[in-house]
Amino acid sequence: MKTITLAHGSGGQAMQQLIASLFMEAFANPWLAEQEDAARLPLAELTACGDKLAFSTDSYVIDPLFFPGGNIGHLAICGTANDVAVGGAIPRWMSCGFILEEGLDFALLEQIVHSMAHTAREAGITIVTGDTKVVPRGAADKVFINTAGMGAIVRGLNWGASQISDGDVIIASGTLGDHGATILNLREQLGLEGDLRSDCAVLAPMIASLHPIAGVKALRDATRGGVNAVLHEFADASGCGMEISEAQLPVKPVVRGVCELLGLDPLNFANEGKLVIVASRAAAPEVLNALHQHPLGKDAAIIGDVTARTGVRVTGLYGVKRSLDLPHAEPLPRIC
Amino acid sequence: MKTITLAHGSGGQAMQQLIASLFMEAFANPWLAEQEDAARLPLAELTACGDKLAFSTDSYVIDPLFFPGGNIGHLAICGTANDVAVGGAIPRWMSCGFILEEGLDFALLEQIVHSMAHTAREAGITIVTGDTKVVPRGAADKVFINTAGMGAIVRGLNWGASQISDGDVIIASGTLGDHGATILNLREQLGLEGDLRSDCAVLAPMIASLHPIAGVKALRDATRGGVNAVLHEFADASGCGMEISEAQLPVKPVVRGVCELLGLDPLNFANEGKLVIVASRAAAPEVLNALHQHPLGKDAAIIGDVTARTGVRVTGLYGVKRSLDLPHAEPLPRIC
Repeated sequence: MKTITLAHGSGGQAMQQLIASLFMEAFANPWLAEQEDAARLPLAELTACGDKLAFSTDSYVIDPLFFPGGNIGHLAICGTANDVAVGGAIPRWMSCGFILEEGLDFALLEQIVHSMAHTAREAGITIVTGDTKVVPRGAADKVFINTAGMGAIVRGLNWGASQISDGDVIIASGTLGDHGATILNLREQLGLEGDLRSDCAVLAPMIASLHPIAGVKALRDATRGGVNAVLHEFADASGCGMEISEAQLPVKPVVRGVCELLGLDPLNFANEGKLVIVASRAAAPEVLNALHQHPLGKDAAIIGDVTARTGVRVTGLYGVKRSLDLPHAEPLPRIC
Repeated sequence: MKTITLAHGSGGQAMQQLIASLFMEAFANPWLAEQEDAARLPLAELTACGDKLAFSTDSYVIDPLFFPGGNIGHLAICGTANDVAVGGAIPRWMSCGFILEEGLDFALLEQIVHSMAHTAREAGITIVTGDTKVVPRGAADKVFINTAGMGAIVRGLNWGASQISDGDVIIASGTLGDHGATILNLREQLGLEGDLRSDCAVLAPMIASLHPIAGVKALRDATRGGVNAVLHEFADASGCGMEISEAQLPVKPVVRGVCELLGLDPLNFANEGKLVIVASRAAAPEVLNALHQHPLGKDAAIIGDVTARTGVRVTGLYGVKRSLDLPHAEPLPRIC
């Protein structure tokens, strides 16, 4: 079995060969091909779209590396692309930093890299610069990936949590908790099967269909901390309250099953392909209609309201309203 | 002792508190304060300077975390800032992703973060977006940091290895191998003392003094792989040969000592604050003069010539010319 050695990260010939034979080939583009220390990118591509740049980063440490619906490489493109896109930007350029453990199966790295390249290409994102470090066996767990992404915010859009006001509605773009439940099932060996699959996807095309809608106020993708964390962020930033209704939450039966089995709440589960959107009440039908026309948004639903009364609350299935606290910690480490 | 727990990376309250009490405070700036998924940055700040964006990333996995002359946080700013600056850009915005090991001493993280904040501030760089992951004990070694940085390339500059031509001269901006020798001394417990100290520094201000000089062709900071790796990159990209002279290499006696002790070549040692510059012969005196006026460039020297004959060669102390091969691997893992 061909494996990653310390030499692959050392700045010598072995590293040059790894870069040339794997990364340059998979991510092939003229900026990367220049092999300068920094990519040189035409700012005009950004200014043609808008006056503001969205810039975001995430490191990915998910365990296991491969899971139903994706892998760490796919996730590293989707997650950062979505963070850029929820600000109203078109994700365009990305950097990529690998931390590899000595002894990693080379074939595994190839699969991950090809998956990244494929996902990026499909989404119109170019990986223009990168870095590879190798650490001795035991100093990291197989593969960690960092991506940093950027794109111009579409001219005229001013989405942000501070735009949210009393009377707005809260929309989820699809079923909640799929990613978290899938990883939990794998890691805890719950042995559930069927429809359990990460929702990991680039949401930028679906988000682009919301650009023309005037009443859209703010978007977040509900990753670590789930919908609950997003609602608390929205509440903090807007000074408004958030009230959602349990009966309206789109949750797959199998995800409900995982939650019941473990006494957990799908609102706290990570998603990797779901938006929480706040829009004016008047714009809500148009937002839902736009989402429903997209395969990733077919289960979109209004899940609650923005209120003048502060706090985050949920109305349970029997009509009892309770406060929804942000837990101290999520159920699972290395979820993304 | 207060330590990092898995909860600090989980998306819940503990993570919010870590972000608010440490990162937001140390890196304080309006873009970070917005706490959106992506920072929203004014493109006009870039276009005022030039039409091209330089974008680069590096992950830092150095062991030990603290060393004479710096620490992993300081290095994470310097290294990425330098990669942006060698392309002729003014480093402006940076992202920062932490991967922390459960059990990490909180005070250590604080020191690292404050050092990053200080180094960035001094260099006019703003850390506008970030991410924190915590992995269980044993899944990473203490702290890994990724930074991605960007800045506009100063209008009119077209530095790059492809500009290099026969007859140009090769300049080193100061003593070689200081960083590599310092880490080697620490890690191998050679017990050498005295002047052994990493050269880790932001080179952007010194590089800016080269912007007005017409004959500057290409710059690289000689990190992993050392000056040797840079010479090979220049040779490959330009189609020219690179000939340097051992007698002209600025190397501190203590670094020579480490090299002699271990039979290693300072040309292969990592630097974190040294440039290899190629300039036209006519421009060389002006380049040297500009470098000498800067504290980080006081030992700058011409170290060789660009030749029509391809290959990388070094003339030894006794006048014998030999081929300088790029080694398969560097002497030391986790050097940066």
